[in-house]
Amino acid sequence: MKKLVLAALLAAGFGAQAQVDADKAALIKSIYTEALGGQQGYDWLKYMCEEIGPRPSGSEAANEAARWAMREMLNAGADTAWLQEVEVPKWYRGEEWCTMSMGGREVNLPATALGGSVPTPENGITAEVVVVNSFEHLESLGREGVEGKIVFYNTYMDHSLISTFNAYGGAVKYRWAGAMEAAKYGAVATIMRSVTLLRDDLPHTGAMSYGDSEVKIPSAAISWQAADKLSEDMGAGPVYVTLFLDCGVQGTATNYNVIADFKGTDKANEIMLVGGHIDSWDLGQGAQDDGAGCAHAMQVPNLLKQVGYEHHRTIRVVLWANEEFGLDGAKEYANWARMNNVHHWVALESDGGAGVPRGFGVGADDDRVAQVQAMKPYFVPYGLHEFAKGGGGADLSPLRGHDDFFVGFRPDSQRYFDFHHSARDRIDAIHPRSLEMGSASIAALFYLLDQL
Amino acid sequence: MKKLVLAALLAAGFGAQAQVDADKAALIKSIYTEALGGQQGYDWLKYMCEEIGPRPSGSEAANEAARWAMREMLNAGADTAWLQEVEVPKWYRGEEWCTMSMGGREVNLPATALGGSVPTPENGITAEVVVVNSFEHLESLGREGVEGKIVFYNTYMDHSLISTFNAYGGAVKYRWAGAMEAAKYGAVATIMRSVTLLRDDLPHTGAMSYGDSEVKIPSAAISWQAADKLSEDMGAGPVYVTLFLDCGVQGTATNYNVIADFKGTDKANEIMLVGGHIDSWDLGQGAQDDGAGCAHAMQVPNLLKQVGYEHHRTIRVVLWANEEFGLDGAKEYANWARMNNVHHWVALESDGGAGVPRGFGVGADDDRVAQVQAMKPYFVPYGLHEFAKGGGGADLSPLRGHDDFFVGFRPDSQRYFDFHHSARDRIDAIHPRSLEMGSASIAALFYLLDQL
Repeated sequence: MKKLVLAALLAAGFGAQAQVDADKAALIKSIYTEALGGQQGYDWLKYMCEEIGPRPSGSEAANEAARWAMREMLNAGADTAWLQEVEVPKWYRGEEWCTMSMGGREVNLPATALGGSVPTPENGITAEVVVVNSFEHLESLGREGVEGKIVFYNTYMDHSLISTFNAYGGAVKYRWAGAMEAAKYGAVATIMRSVTLLRDDLPHTGAMSYGDSEVKIPSAAISWQAADKLSEDMGAGPVYVTLFLDCGVQGTATNYNVIADFKGTDKANEIMLVGGHIDSWDLGQGAQDDGAGCAHAMQVPNLLKQVGYEHHRTIRVVLWANEEFGLDGAKEYANWARMNNVHHWVALESDGGAGVPRGFGVGADDDRVAQVQAMKPYFVPYGLHEFAKGGGGADLSPLRGHDDFFVGFRPDSQRYFDFHHSARDRIDAIHPRSLEMGSASIAALFYLLDQL
Repeated sequence: MKKLVLAALLAAGFGAQAQVDADKAALIKSIYTEALGGQQGYDWLKYMCEEIGPRPSGSEAANEAARWAMREMLNAGADTAWLQEVEVPKWYRGEEWCTMSMGGREVNLPATALGGSVPTPENGITAEVVVVNSFEHLESLGREGVEGKIVFYNTYMDHSLISTFNAYGGAVKYRWAGAMEAAKYGAVATIMRSVTLLRDDLPHTGAMSYGDSEVKIPSAAISWQAADKLSEDMGAGPVYVTLFLDCGVQGTATNYNVIADFKGTDKANEIMLVGGHIDSWDLGQGAQDDGAGCAHAMQVPNLLKQVGYEHHRTIRVVLWANEEFGLDGAKEYANWARMNNVHHWVALESDGGAGVPRGFGVGADDDRVAQVQAMKPYFVPYGLHEFAKGGGGADLSPLRGHDDFFVGFRPDSQRYFDFHHSARDRIDAIHPRSLEMGSASIAALFYLLDQL
């Protein structure tokens, strides 16, 4: 009776005070203790960052990382592990710079090409700058205001949003479509305020698209402080900028998805997938994005093994190739899974960095969501309070329609965009305890799910 | 009826889904938006760290900081602000080093004197090392095992505890009493593994005590990595260490509490105190400990003013002198308050750093605790879920018995002891958004409390 009351209250949206099973709670405690003490995920990530380095789409480093991760998973007791070929764009970045003429002198504006941008001519592009605050603003300026100029998207992430992922969602459209839109009005290039909330002097890259546009203009991000300098200087007469980018997509190359299976005891055909993407942008080491997710995923079977838990279902670690430049790895994996009738009983993605865990988002039917939300009391002692409906992630999206139980891991988001797609995304951006609390949280969730 | 049901559920321990008043929620939103956009607290803290620097007990820098903070509070609209004299120990630190003889060569062990330690003789102290894992272990070794040696406390914070403040509580006794206990058995000095969870190469200082002991032996902390080196080398024959410390308490000096009042409209005699301590250790800049608490406190009246809220009660910002070396400022303030019959309607301390806010601890009677817990729904959108009974902090402790409503601000604790009392505690250890989410959370709580 008491249990029914509790269930009813939980169903009514009252959370977190339900009973927990003491044995299960003890096993979960041992998972966290092992993660925080052993720090194997951090050691893996450190190797990936320092010994292998950045892993951009089409790079040999991405392949070196894939081979290394496969070996590590076999060493950690995987029953099988293999590399799945994925054809990806090969991204090249050479020299890049941007300067502003100001009172007769040149001021450096730290800049980086957006991923996919065409290069500038050999001498760069010099043009007057027109500042634009939104696509509506661009449209209102029209060809008259834009033609022959460099469009400067002085657009911001919304600092008032507590979830910086939501703030990112609102701002990234100018990165993705800024060049395509500006070209319609005759712009010769675009620069944009980096998509970040840290008011620093590093530019942040990220994917952009020309869509179906035949006119492709060079497109770069400049640092927050550079954007401040530039916007302060606007209005007192014309401002000229010179942009030089040596970059571009140079055909395609082969990268690999890593797939490692840790067989379940009696429900081996039910796959519990946990993954991150092994590629990264080229400016840092891809520590937060998404080395952390790879480390999380690799730790899940390892932690369960370390604490002596024998899982019923098969745990599959997938490290996807080329998320950043078009989800090629995720699409390849999903196609293969569909062709081979692989049933993912659950699929969880970690691609939000190594912040302190806040909870999970669950993309599933209401009953399944309620089942996961009922697990919250096991996580509250570890600071996880957010068990929201709706979740998954970019690399899980190609599985939709085929499988139906997705989970997105949700770390604290406050610092993520400080590092994101910039030279700052290095191993020293990673806090070992926060990272490993993430590993443990995902492993604990997989343990509880496996018990269903 | 619905409200009664909700109240009953809340009383029964079911949290967080209660109704919120839309106007209040909107005002709270404006507080967070102002904090995250304006970042005035971060600017203040940056000034304190970079322009003034570390503020150890008895230093002129502590006084410079106090005068600066008083001026800033007057500029921010304080009705009155003053400096309260506090007599404090004057701490001096000169050169310090520690080396280990290993296979004929000297290995440097990064070391720092604990606060209050006596210096070593001019040529340092060279002696065999005996490793000790606990006070029980020390006792079991006895005089026979310890006399004439340097005791090495190879003690750890418990990494399995999720609250690192709790882990600190369990480990800090070896820092506080290690020298006093070892001296009983004839030790000539002590060194200890730094009280931290980061496995790095920086030593962390902090207060120690000789109690009533007449024998005072030098006492230092060494870095985690140095402690690893030393403990790895133990057991393969005797290990000798040389410790040199030039340090000590050099009499007393005058420092100041800063007290700034922002008068309430109609309940001006009811004081809402918010404070942090203005002193710091000498190795870094005192950014997390406790510049962040000062910035939080200074922001509270400022944010309420920026959003146009006129408070009924008086908001008093108190920045205490010398917390680290004996709570002198807090004791002086409490004595003065008692003598002048000051009634603190509520007193809140921020001395847990600038991590992302997790909640508040409330030290008050059950009714008051329930009142604050009922405010939780206003904070859940900002990620604050922890509203525990029991709270306050070191600098509030002298007020106990006189007042009866204390609140401790609880930021996320995972990274705090990475920085704590070390050279790493600098402005670059501070994340602007996390800091300002703390300022906003405290200001929002003060707003809701003022509405009671």
